[in-house]
Amino acid sequence: PASLLHRRAIKRWFSGRGGDSLVVMETRHLETGDPEPPELPRGSEVLTLYSMLYCPYAQRTRLVLQHKQLPHRVINVNLVRKPDWFLARAPLPSAKVPIIELPGDEKLRLADSLITCEFLEEAFAGATSNGTDGDLMPSMGTPGAPRLRAAQRQTISRNDAMISAFYRWALKKDEPAEERELLWDRLLWQLRNLQADLRDGGFFGGARAQLADFMVWPWIERLPPLMQHYCLPPRLPDSLGHLSAWSEAMSETEPVRATRLPDWAHLAFVESHWRREPRYDFLENRED
Amino acid sequence: PASLLHRRAIKRWFSGRGGDSLVVMETRHLETGDPEPPELPRGSEVLTLYSMLYCPYAQRTRLVLQHKQLPHRVINVNLVRKPDWFLARAPLPSAKVPIIELPGDEKLRLADSLITCEFLEEAFAGATSNGTDGDLMPSMGTPGAPRLRAAQRQTISRNDAMISAFYRWALKKDEPAEERELLWDRLLWQLRNLQADLRDGGFFGGARAQLADFMVWPWIERLPPLMQHYCLPPRLPDSLGHLSAWSEAMSETEPVRATRLPDWAHLAFVESHWRREPRYDFLENRED
Repeated sequence: PASLLHRRAIKRWFSGRGGDSLVVMETRHLETGDPEPPELPRGSEVLTLYSMLYCPYAQRTRLVLQHKQLPHRVINVNLVRKPDWFLARAPLPSAKVPIIELPGDEKLRLADSLITCEFLEEAFAGATSNGTDGDLMPSMGTPGAPRLRAAQRQTISRNDAMISAFYRWALKKDEPAEERELLWDRLLWQLRNLQADLRDGGFFGGARAQLADFMVWPWIERLPPLMQHYCLPPRLPDSLGHLSAWSEAMSETEPVRATRLPDWAHLAFVESHWRREPRYDFLENRED
Repeated sequence: PASLLHRRAIKRWFSGRGGDSLVVMETRHLETGDPEPPELPRGSEVLTLYSMLYCPYAQRTRLVLQHKQLPHRVINVNLVRKPDWFLARAPLPSAKVPIIELPGDEKLRLADSLITCEFLEEAFAGATSNGTDGDLMPSMGTPGAPRLRAAQRQTISRNDAMISAFYRWALKKDEPAEERELLWDRLLWQLRNLQADLRDGGFFGGARAQLADFMVWPWIERLPPLMQHYCLPPRLPDSLGHLSAWSEAMSETEPVRATRLPDWAHLAFVESHWRREPRYDFLENRED
């Protein structure tokens, strides 16, 4: 039904950035009582992503879908009032996004951002539909592949520690200033630690953006709006120069251009989340 | 120096179970002030595992080393008083075990149980030195491999939720009885949830034990001694019949036989840990 559809005013933010044509449909954030989205036509090869527009973990999967040029539909879910049919479909009881669902009768569903991304990497190996290299890890069997693949996974693990520090800093909004500064210093330490994995040439994965780069990106995208909220200078300190250069380079990649949201949108969403009234769909009603 | 060596009285527990010949050396639990273990001879192909004898995460890596029949030395580390040279070698600032170190001049070091196990899987693919199938995941390129590999990863993710429930139950030893029962019920729920991933034929990974099975095992090994400690009946409820059958089958595999510790040893270690005086090396001095 048309009422399920996201009106895609949001589309304007992505317009001219490529990649949007891969999203064959995107719903507003469906909640308890909303009907199930219709089945895909028989024989469709479109993947389904259960997502939430502001979720950094779900963005990981969107980045990989974009990199691999895979047509997909996005079913956005209200995470406070999850629809019953969504709960019934979730592979893990925690029922978090992202979840990907394969087309066809079997409808294999996978949860967890890394599991979905590694599955897409393995199931859709090789060139993309537009002829570019779609691989996000060195293929098994190429020289040094096990070490290079392990190095990317080690970066992703290091990023997990950064994510913890990120949320301890970002979510403690009512802490005294000294406590905030301590948490900020700890986050900077984790960022420097993460930065140590950057390769000569710029990216975590090597000479071009690969799996580790896309797994790290969503939190780096959210850093400037939160720094702005906390009245910090808008630039990272000089000690994070390599990470800043990486961030600039990532901003130019097609998957980031196709999935990135403007700083003000991240901030408006986070502030609504802090008021315990997350506004998932405000972008679609915005007129400017 | 000989003083670094574990006296390997513990060896008796494994004797006749195979696999022990793969451990070319095992130290006692080295602590602050203990000298660095000597370098391996040039050209050695022996892997190094930094470990702690009772750590379930480190056991994951030991299980994979055993399955793949890879000769390795084990440097055990006192996790309360970590040696400086260990801290300097750890790839992640958290400096947890397991860590594997590759032989050779480069000495690549990897931390995190899953990362070490996936690296070993990829770097040592194919048949083992005794001719058996060493692969722990269906090889990329074989039919259905991406789905089967993703299914194993989903099981490992489900096991993460079980591990959380396991420790909430096991470590809350001073809670009132009703609270303990609630935590036990939640653990049983997670175990049933995990059990739902068992395949026809018995194992999580398919017809034989594979990666997911070995990643789950260490916590199942530790369940009976903890149940005993809390005066629970020694058997899992009938609703976990398939998991009990899996546990029996796992007990017969070579890697489990080669790494398993007796229930009383697990319990004695955990009780020393609860007293905040973990006794890492009591097994080697035991006379019986």
